[in-house]
Parts: sequence; structure tokens; C-alpha cells
Amino acid sequence: MLNNVQRELPDDLMKELRYQPFKTVEIGHPEIQRAAPKVTVDQGHAKLVSSIEAVIKKVGLKDGMTISFHHHFREGDYVFNAVMQILIDQGFKGLTLAPSSLTNVMNKMVVKAIKAGVVTHITSSGMRGELGDLVSHGGLENPVILRSHGNRARAIESGDIKIDVAFLGVPNSDEVGNANAIKGNAVFGSLGYALIDAQYADKVVLLTDTLMPYPNTPASIKQTQVDYVVKVDKVGDPEKIGSGATRFTKDPKELKIAEMVNAVITHSPYFKQGFSFQTGSGGAALAVTRYLRESMLKKSITASFALGGITKPTVDLLNEGLVGKILDVQDFDKGAADSMAITENQQEIDASWYADPNNKGAAVNQLDVCILSALEIDTKFNVNVMTGSDGVLRGAIGGHQDAANAKLTIISAPIVRGRIATVVDDVTTIVTPGDSIDVLVTELGIAINPKRKDLLKSLVNIPGVPVFTIEQLRQKAAKIVGQAAPLAFTDKPVALIEYRDGTLMDVVYQVKD
Amino acid sequence: MLNNVQRELPDDLMKELRYQPFKTVEIGHPEIQRAAPKVTVDQGHAKLVSSIEAVIKKVGLKDGMTISFHHHFREGDYVFNAVMQILIDQGFKGLTLAPSSLTNVMNKMVVKAIKAGVVTHITSSGMRGELGDLVSHGGLENPVILRSHGNRARAIESGDIKIDVAFLGVPNSDEVGNANAIKGNAVFGSLGYALIDAQYADKVVLLTDTLMPYPNTPASIKQTQVDYVVKVDKVGDPEKIGSGATRFTKDPKELKIAEMVNAVITHSPYFKQGFSFQTGSGGAALAVTRYLRESMLKKSITASFALGGITKPTVDLLNEGLVGKILDVQDFDKGAADSMAITENQQEIDASWYADPNNKGAAVNQLDVCILSALEIDTKFNVNVMTGSDGVLRGAIGGHQDAANAKLTIISAPIVRGRIATVVDDVTTIVTPGDSIDVLVTELGIAINPKRKDLLKSLVNIPGVPVFTIEQLRQKAAKIVGQAAPLAFTDKPVALIEYRDGTLMDVVYQVKD
Repeated sequence: MLNNVQRELPDDLMKELRYQPFKTVEIGHPEIQRAAPKVTVDQGHAKLVSSIEAVIKKVGLKDGMTISFHHHFREGDYVFNAVMQILIDQGFKGLTLAPSSLTNVMNKMVVKAIKAGVVTHITSSGMRGELGDLVSHGGLENPVILRSHGNRARAIESGDIKIDVAFLGVPNSDEVGNANAIKGNAVFGSLGYALIDAQYADKVVLLTDTLMPYPNTPASIKQTQVDYVVKVDKVGDPEKIGSGATRFTKDPKELKIAEMVNAVITHSPYFKQGFSFQTGSGGAALAVTRYLRESMLKKSITASFALGGITKPTVDLLNEGLVGKILDVQDFDKGAADSMAITENQQEIDASWYADPNNKGAAVNQLDVCILSALEIDTKFNVNVMTGSDGVLRGAIGGHQDAANAKLTIISAPIVRGRIATVVDDVTTIVTPGDSIDVLVTELGIAINPKRKDLLKSLVNIPGVPVFTIEQLRQKAAKIVGQAAPLAFTDKPVALIEYRDGTLMDVVYQVKD
Repeated sequence: MLNNVQRELPDDLMKELRYQPFKTVEIGHPEIQRAAPKVTVDQGHAKLVSSIEAVIKKVGLKDGMTISFHHHFREGDYVFNAVMQILIDQGFKGLTLAPSSLTNVMNKMVVKAIKAGVVTHITSSGMRGELGDLVSHGGLENPVILRSHGNRARAIESGDIKIDVAFLGVPNSDEVGNANAIKGNAVFGSLGYALIDAQYADKVVLLTDTLMPYPNTPASIKQTQVDYVVKVDKVGDPEKIGSGATRFTKDPKELKIAEMVNAVITHSPYFKQGFSFQTGSGGAALAVTRYLRESMLKKSITASFALGGITKPTVDLLNEGLVGKILDVQDFDKGAADSMAITENQQEIDASWYADPNNKGAAVNQLDVCILSALEIDTKFNVNVMTGSDGVLRGAIGGHQDAANAKLTIISAPIVRGRIATVVDDVTTIVTPGDSIDVLVTELGIAINPKRKDLLKSLVNIPGVPVFTIEQLRQKAAKIVGQAAPLAFTDKPVALIEYRDGTLMDVVYQVKD
């Protein structure tokens, strides 16, 4: 069966997993019966447990169950590996792993768990490194299900993901489970993704190294939601929570792209008093934030809010009065994480509020401008942020599909990377459909999605910003690096890319060696 | 059938409404499948509606549905009457009214709605005045179901109450439903009870007189939960939100009782560094708070938290450093309501966090000392706060059953009121079972529940606090006012008193004229 982005979907898999094919980026008004946890009532008098081993017994974890984690500690996470090692040691089998995402520090452990048969199913926002390699080479029998952050919230809220036990590391908690992420040794700011697990998992285990007196407030996670609290030595390495995301780029190509991205924003009809934006993480994003700041100062324009994963430079805009509020679902660096405790208008939001397409209105629906990256973008403006040029899993959907819901969605990417074209005829894997992408910005110039004719007038005559068709940009890329040989895959699906509404967008197949 | 407090329960009604008889104040560890709303998905672009009439059409309200309101505006509520008048005008029939409670300002309108057949079922925390009269005289065909605040949260969370449409007045909201109660013209502080409705109702309508720019934070109610926002002229009268609750008593009898209550607290084993308390509202409660303050200063003891409905004197203790945190489910006066915006440690909590017996641990489970009132208390320490000496409904359960969960639960009451005994052989209506009451304090002296022999040592020799058996106090009351003639009731049940776990505690029958 072909879906509406012309991807062939295997009929048997569609049937087995009850998938509908991707149709449209319009969500409409379906009626959704929400799911709800099965709660084991407790008066909260003896929640404190002294070890992970003990708590695994207490929650009644069994083979075949679904367990979850969050990835807010990013590369500084100690909780995931500690819990998983014990599950491996105890010989659990057939677990479904349903974390909000998998960071590099978790890869080795997941590989080990897969090889031991402990983990047989995975749903995540992404995967990289040796885990991506293993899965792409057919090392996991069942295809990984890859979901955006908003889609994970949707899936949990509707029951598509049913979490039996959530293991949630927190920088602090009291003995009955009132917890936040703004105090303690390994502060990460917003608990955004974990809040959904705390609300919907049947059993919720908090792991913390910092016990606070009762009642611990603010309580992002509440005592009403928590079954057990485990005191561990260290939940994470605060120095690695923000690693790799905060360096301001000095690469002239990245700076040029950032300057053009800013020019597109500031010449668009959306750059006006009270506009809103999401810039994301990475050196190029930080550069955009810097240029945007200068433009806002020059034009005396302030933003009503900034959204998404948050960095220190965005917090600086808030403190400078250039941004009214920050809606913060995760913090990409220590500066943003630390500021949450002292910055009233840096509001923690959960993943549903951020981006669930199936609620009564998420923050992404109010977003004016959004800047996203791409591994590949094709002439239909479809974007791949999941598979590399070798067809191997090495990315994450993150909030990509979700934030692309903005009124002006800009893909910022170099025209080629090394010997690899970024702009191509057809992306290897479609993550975000071209219908939600408005402008591509490369160092050579920009391409405007033909569906956005309304943008032409304001964007065609920006000094220093040449406008091309996306086909012209593809040709320029091909001229630089030549046409890549087609990739060879087996017919075994190794990963399924859902759209944010839970329909099937694309299938990633096992690479042929 | 007799339940464990020896109340005869009508078998047919038990069967029809699938009630279990009240057994014990111990909640245990049942597994509860939580309920969840049916959500109509929306991207939040057109939630603002110009009139109540229009929103009633948009939410698809139908005869027989269940509607809810909160009572945080107390006697200053404009929202309830405005909505109900329109439902009457439009000729709706057979609605179930499920507010968090009914205040006096709503009485006339509910009577009108009952007489018009618009409302045929009611569940509430209490009822008074002409509404209590009407129901007690058989004016509503189906018995009212009376639940504590914690039990209402339990009932909604488990699906015993299924709210089709919640009409929630808020002092402010943005156009997509991010709302709080700490800014605006009619600030009432904590949205505690309404938060459950916002989370569990299929359709949620906010009514406000103050629209804020997006994104409005803090968002006690979130855009993800709200279907429509109606702009009205005025949601409430801020002067009447705290009416009647804040006067400090000058009645020497009340002051004497308050002084003895304080003596009981301070001589008990619970009065130590880090203790916690709930004092409630009313002049006598405020007097207790004043005496308690003096004792805390004298002994250099500070409390970890104060809980419940909050008054200005409790906020003063917080600001003075005598109380560490306030867990605030509702505010009884303007001072407490206004302070929430500026007082970091005055934490808004929802009704589930406050007192739901069927979650993973509510705040009342952590409570050391609690002072409650009584219309009647009997020699088994059972307490009536619902029916008057004429058998007519004139009270509210409120958090009575819930807070009685404290380690030291004190009933503070005069031995007689006018010509009516407070201490009796058998209360007219059992609301809170004697098993959860520890000490009765009257102006003549105290009685200690014989089940609390452990308290005897610390409480028997307090200077100026005579100790009696409760039978002795009953005799003293009878000596003053004589034995009341037994009340005459028909066999028509007009109200059912649930215990907080949803079992049946008592039945109120129609009074005989």
C-alpha cells in the first residue's frame, strides 16, 4: 500500500500492527477515548526503598511488560544503565523498552539487553551509534517504533503505549514522591517528557540521590502518582547533561546559514510584535538565536514566547525582556536547567502540552516560527532526520514533526555534508512530510515550498539571500558531490516511522552488507 | 443491612446503586482502574466563544447529562447562576448536578432547576438553606449523594462520577484555556477542586472576565484540557469570596474551647519540631491558630506544613517562618487568596493530592493534627456535620472525613447550642465514623476516644482541661437541655452519605411534617 507521501508500506505489517497509512498533516477533530492507569492504592507510609533490586520485586515486574525511562539527563544519565543492568542480571525476558528517547550513554546497555533477550521491543524517539547499527543490521527481531515527542504523549494518552513500570530518575524527591528537577546535584530543569509517564504508568518508581523534607514543592511529579522512591548514590553527572549542545558555532558556513535563516524570519510576515519561535539546540540554532536577538533589538520587537527544548541563550532573551515567557519541555544545557529554579516565566510544560496532536490544543499549534535541521531533504520538501546516507539509524525524531506545525517552518541545512548531498530527489526515510515545511535555507540560498506562494513576495528580494527552486538546489548539491548510488536493503523492516498522529509514515529496512 | 457503624441501610437501594456498606476507616491496597475522559481533538484555534448560550450548543449538552461546577467563588459566585438560568430557559431536562459543593448563593437557582425538572440528580459535598429544606421534605425524587472532597476526587477518578460538561469559572484565562486563580478581578487563590473536573470531564468550558495574553502562566488549568473559553462580564464578587469565614471570635465560650484545643495539641506527642496541622475555617479555628502561634513561639517549634482550606492567619504563620509550606486546596478568605500570587511556599494542590483515599498517597495521610467541627457527636464518637436537630440537611462534609485521617483528630464543639445538645447518644446522621476521631473538646472539658489509650498519659493532667468520658459529657449536655424527642422521618431516602472510599455510611430520610 502506498501512503500519501508515496511510500510503499508492507500490507502484512500494516494489518498485524493495525496501522493506518499517513494521509495528511491536518489532524482534524477525532474523538479519542483516553487511557488511564491501574492504580494500586496506598496511603504513602512506606514508599522509600533501599535498592533497585528491592523495588523491582515490589512493583511486580514480569517478563513481557513495558518499562519506561526519560532522557532528561541526556549524556549524564546514571539511572537507565543502573536499572537495566539489574534487569539483565535478574534474567528478565521479552521486555518492551519505551523511553522518551535513547541517548548515546545508553547504547551499550541496550545492545546488551537485546542480545540477552531482555529487551525484544523498543519504541523511542530515536537511536544512534552501536545501537542504531545493531538494529539496522537486523539485530532486533521486532521493528523499532519511532515516535516524535508529541506522538509519544499521544500514544501514552490513548493507550497505544501502555507502561507497566516507569523508572524515573529525579534530582530530588521527598519520601512519598513529590519531586522536581530544579534542585539537587544533577539538576536538569524541566521534567516535561517524564510527566506523562508519571501520570499514565501503572507503577511509578522514582530514583533520586537527594531526599527532601515533606512536602517537597514545587511538585512536578506528585505523591499521588508515585509508588516507590529509591535512594541511589548518584542519578547523573550534571556536567554531561548539557554536553555537546551548547557550543556557539564558529564555522563560517553555519554562520552564513544562520544569518540567512534570521533574514528569512525577519522578512517574513510573522516577525512582528508578540511573535513566537522555537530554535532548538546545536551550534547553528544558537547562532540563529544570536542574530534574532540583534534584529529584535533593532526593530524593537519582542516575542510573546519561546518554545521547546531550551538553551541558555533563549533564557538570556527572557531575562533581557525580549521574550515574554518560555514554555520549557526540556533543557539542552546547564544554564537553561539551572535558571528554571529562579526564573518565574520559564514555565515547565509536559509533552502533551508541548506537542500532543490529539489533545484540545498544544503549544506547537500557537507557534509562529520554527527552525529545524535535516540529514536530508528532498524535492518534495520531505525531511529525513533518522537514517544516514548509509541507511543506518542515526538520529531522532524529537519534536521535528511536532514543531513543523508552526506557521513558518524553516529547515536549516548545508547543501552537502562532506561527500554527501543534503538536498536529494528522495530522502532515504521520510520523517516530516514536505507539506509542513515552508522554507529550506542552505549556505547557497533558500528554496520556498511552492505551496507557500503567499511567502514569495516577502522572501524573494532579501539582500544576500538568493532564492532557488528546491530542484535547483538539488542540482547544485549533485554537481558538488555527484549522484549517490542507491542504497541496498533487505526486505526485513527494522524500524517504523510514525507520523505524530500515529499513522505510518515510512519503514526503515535492514541494510544489506 | 447493618453497616459497621450500626446504621440500617435499605437493601433495595444498596442493590440498585451497587453500594457496599461502610466497613472500616482503613483503606487498604485495592487495585483501581482509573477512568479517563473522551477527548474531542482540537488544535485550539477557535476556542473563544462569546456567550454561554453559544457554548452550550457547541459542547453538545443533552438531557440526562452530568454537569459540574466548583465552589471556589463561595458566596461571591456569579457563574453558577448564570449558566443554570440559561439551562432552565432552554428547557433542559434530567441533568445530574455534580458540583464540588453548593454555596448559599446557589440555593434559589437549584430549587428552581429542580422544580422545573432541569435537575433530577445531585451529588455534592453539602447543601443548606431552602435547598436543604426542599430536599429534606422530599422535593427531589432521587436521593442526593453526599461526598467528601477527597471522595469526590476518588469518584471522578474511578468513573463513579462521569462529568459530561464542566463549567468552570476562573479569574483569568488566555484564549485557549491556560488559567489560574491568582490574577484578575475575582481572585480566589487555589483552584484545587476544579482541577479534577478539568482533568476528567469530557468537555471543559472556562468562563472568565479577564483574558490574558498567550501563554498565560502559571497554568493551573491547561490549554490541553479546555474545549472553550467564554468571556463574561463578571465571574464573581471578590468581596464575598471570603465572607463569613474570617472573623476572629470574641465569644468567651469559643475562646475557651480554642484554648483547650490548643492545650490538647501542645500536650500531645505530635507537637514537636516539623509537625503538621489543618485548622479549617470559622472564628473558632482562627482562634486556635492564634493560640497555636503563641505556643509555637514559646516552645521554638515550627511546623513543616499546614494543610487544607487556608485562611489569612495561616498564611501569616508561613510568612513569619512558623510554617514551612502551605498545601492549599482552597482559600477561605481574601487574604489567603491574594497571597498565593506572591507566596512561593503556598502550594496549590488538587483535591486528589489533598485527600483522595484511592491514590498512591494523599496529603491528609501525612497530617499530624487536625481540628474539625461537629453539629453532633455521639458516645461512639461518630460525628454529624450534615443534618440539624430537626433532621434537615444544613451542612457539608467538606474535608471532614478526609482530614479525620490525621494522627490526632480533635472535634471542637460547644456542649450545647441553644436548647440543643451537641453530645448525644446517637447522632442523627453519621458523617465521620468515631474510629477516626481521637479527642472531643468542649467548653466543659475533653473526652478521649477509649481506642486512644496511648493519648491518656499526655492529656489527663493538663491544667485547666478536665477530662471526662464522652458519656459523662453527654449527661452534662442532657442535664442542661434535657433529652430531645426522637425525630420523625418517612421511609423515603433523600440523601446518601458516602464514606470517603465510596461505601455507604448513612441514609438521610425525608422529615415528617
